[in-house]
This record gives sequence, C-alpha cells and structure tokens, in this order.
Amino acid sequence: MQFHPIGIIHTPYTKHAPRQSITEAEGVFYISIDPANEQGLFRLEKHSHIFIIYWLDRQTEPIKWVVTPHHGQAAPVGLFASRTPLRPNPIGLSLVKLLGVDGNVLHISGIDALDGTPVLDIKPYFKGLDSIPLKTSSPSG
Amino acid sequence: MQFHPIGIIHTPYTKHAPRQSITEAEGVFYISIDPANEQGLFRLEKHSHIFIIYWLDRQTEPIKWVVTPHHGQAAPVGLFASRTPLRPNPIGLSLVKLLGVDGNVLHISGIDALDGTPVLDIKPYFKGLDSIPLKTSSPSG
Repeated sequence: MQFHPIGIIHTPYTKHAPRQSITEAEGVFYISIDPANEQGLFRLEKHSHIFIIYWLDRQTEPIKWVVTPHHGQAAPVGLFASRTPLRPNPIGLSLVKLLGVDGNVLHISGIDALDGTPVLDIKPYFKGLDSIPLKTSSPSG
Repeated sequence: MQFHPIGIIHTPYTKHAPRQSITEAEGVFYISIDPANEQGLFRLEKHSHIFIIYWLDRQTEPIKWVVTPHHGQAAPVGLFASRTPLRPNPIGLSLVKLLGVDGNVLHISGIDALDGTPVLDIKPYFKGLDSIPLKTSSPSG
C-alpha cells in the first residue's frame, strides 16, 4: 500500500522531538495542509482536539523488537507496547489541541514530531469513540 | 512512502462494519499478528487498551471532500472533521479494549473494520498522552 502526505507539521524541533502531552506545549506548532486537501477541513474548527497521524520519515535506525521506555517503569517491553518511533511501519499518532484554523493552516498544541514531518491523516477526537469509559478503565490504562 | 501489514484483523463483518465504541462489542474480534512481528508484543498484555491503526483496504469509492455524518448533528463537515473511511490516505484508527494476548493473537473488543483488514501498527494507550485533561476539555471535544 502506498500513501501520500496531505500536509506538513511545523515544530521547533530539528533533531530531537521530546515526548509530550497536550498540556505541555512550548513554542509554535502548526500544520500546513496541502491546498488540494483544504476543502476537507470544513468545520474542523468545531473540534477542540484532533488526532494527527504522521509519517516518522527521519527514522534511519533499524527497529529493536524489545525496547526500554524512558518513562514510568523501566522494564523492557515489545515495541508494540511502547511508543518508540522505530516501528515496522513508522507511523506516529498524537492527540493535540486544535487552537485555530486559518485557511489551510492548523494551529495546534505541542506535538513530538520533527519540523517538516509529513502528515498522513487528521481525525476529529470523539469522546464516545476515543476515550475509555471510567467504569471499564483499569490502573494500567 | 510504502507500508506493509503487520497482521490481520478478524471481525464478524464482511460487507459493512458498524461504527462502534469499545463498550459496544458484540461477536468475536481478534488480531493475528504476523509471527515475524510477534516479539514486538512482549508485555503488551499489561495494557488494558490499545490503538489499532489499520489500512481501509476495501475502499473503492472516490472520496468526497464534504460529508454528512450519520451521527450527532447532521450538518455537513469536511472529511478531516469526520471519521469517514473515504480519506486521501485510507487509514483507520480505533481504540479497543485488549481482552487478552495468546501468542501472536490479540483478543480485542469491537472494532469497526471489515474481516481481513490489514493492520499497520499497534500502540499502547497512555492516559497522559491520549486523554484530554478535564480542565482543558470543551463541550465539542
């Protein structure tokens, strides 16, 4: 299967993109959507949060099947149990706050992507689909 | 960019996959990971919920830039403001409950994917990255 970028992520990061949540934004982050795709942004601004699916295009190292996460407990885990960028399909996923839409430009909160990262898809966050109901949540979630 | 499936989603759906949240599972849903990727599943079972990123490979219709969602308010929105499967890059994203891991088989809660859908990536759900802090959440989120 072959995919094509729909836009580009702009961040302050040229060499290392620190892992971050949507509350930790520092600096200017935005996505420029290819004008050919701009119609697809109609009414996106009604959403406070969106998922960005992007291509981790700067990964050159070989993947490691078992990795040791930098956060939380230090026990080694399989790469599918981690968010390492070194994956069989180098696809990144981030939930960000949508700060505003200006034509084909999406102003967003912080995202752990390098400047110039190609975007594959944008999806609105829906609480009913994308959040864990409190009663089914477990401590490991 | 080119991606390759890491596994296959098995669902009861052959023609139409109903939109659903993780609380609405009916039927048997599982993912068989290609044995070549099985090492990457190490300790995945510690996670109660995972994201599945998959290739919407049965989409043959042309995309529509503006769509009318079947749910909620009926106002037309751009395709990036919807979860329509007809997208420039036909990538699906679902948060599911991980019911168990049995070798290279992941037993999961319901997912709106057709039987035989190729999987591109599996990522653990981390509350700190993937949920909206209550104080920043808005009614539209």
